[in-house]
Amino acid sequence: MSKNSFSHMNCAIAQTLERVGEWWTLLILRNAFCGMTRFDDFHEHLGISTNILSDRLGHLTATGILKRETSKKDARSFEYKLTPMGLSLYPILIAMTEWGEKWVPNSKGPRVKLLERNTGKPIKGVVIQSSEGRPLTPYDVKIIDGPGADDKIRKLVTLRK
Amino acid sequence: MSKNSFSHMNCAIAQTLERVGEWWTLLILRNAFCGMTRFDDFHEHLGISTNILSDRLGHLTATGILKRETSKKDARSFEYKLTPMGLSLYPILIAMTEWGEKWVPNSKGPRVKLLERNTGKPIKGVVIQSSEGRPLTPYDVKIIDGPGADDKIRKLVTLRK
Repeated sequence: MSKNSFSHMNCAIAQTLERVGEWWTLLILRNAFCGMTRFDDFHEHLGISTNILSDRLGHLTATGILKRETSKKDARSFEYKLTPMGLSLYPILIAMTEWGEKWVPNSKGPRVKLLERNTGKPIKGVVIQSSEGRPLTPYDVKIIDGPGADDKIRKLVTLRK
Repeated sequence: MSKNSFSHMNCAIAQTLERVGEWWTLLILRNAFCGMTRFDDFHEHLGISTNILSDRLGHLTATGILKRETSKKDARSFEYKLTPMGLSLYPILIAMTEWGEKWVPNSKGPRVKLLERNTGKPIKGVVIQSSEGRPLTPYDVKIIDGPGADDKIRKLVTLRK
């Protein structure tokens, strides 16, 4: 179970995982998206050890996904809040919610429901869209190398023509 | 860096991470989406040890995300292919690609480009949609508890009204 770094990999997915792929990190971010901000609240809700939590929050803050601010209510404590970089992880978390609800359901029904705040209607969810707004399946999408590609990427994208 | 299981957590994201959140797993799936099927090819392309690769492929096969088939070209070897459960992870991987390209770019430009196969046009990408198809930001989405929720979820979804 050795854990190597992906930081040397020239791949957008690897670079994303390097920042949010550690065990616990995406659950910490799930709670942040729900409005949780305080170290003690993360600790209590997740049942995570303080040293791992401290490591993950430190990494997320250093990366720029969370910002640490002095609490307005208590100048001795801090609040962790999502930055624009953090907020743009939302589609990943929504896509994971949808996958888990679909493939590992709770027998009593959905654990959560995602509604549009203004209308109260269930949202359609995460969709892969064409430039004209049509929904696309994995088979509809073709990956090609861009100017930032290296040989590893070029090898991957030529596997399937 | 102790690694606990999330299997006891009544949360769709935790259940998704339990299945695909291990270090290396999403890179293996990235390669599978690109058409890679053989153990030796994963091993060589990822530079991953054979015991970790074997562990991850075994877990993905047991979970039903990959299926292992005898190769049509060589009856002594196997091919790992995405099942419908595996294919429905695609929005997660596309969302990670987009996040990584945006926030950790390569200075030469995009590493990959995602095109619509039929038209050759760049896709719009992953979008969170309302029931009527309008794009939604994180602030537009409200999460409420469903019939499968427990106290942990109810606590989370009531943090932000």
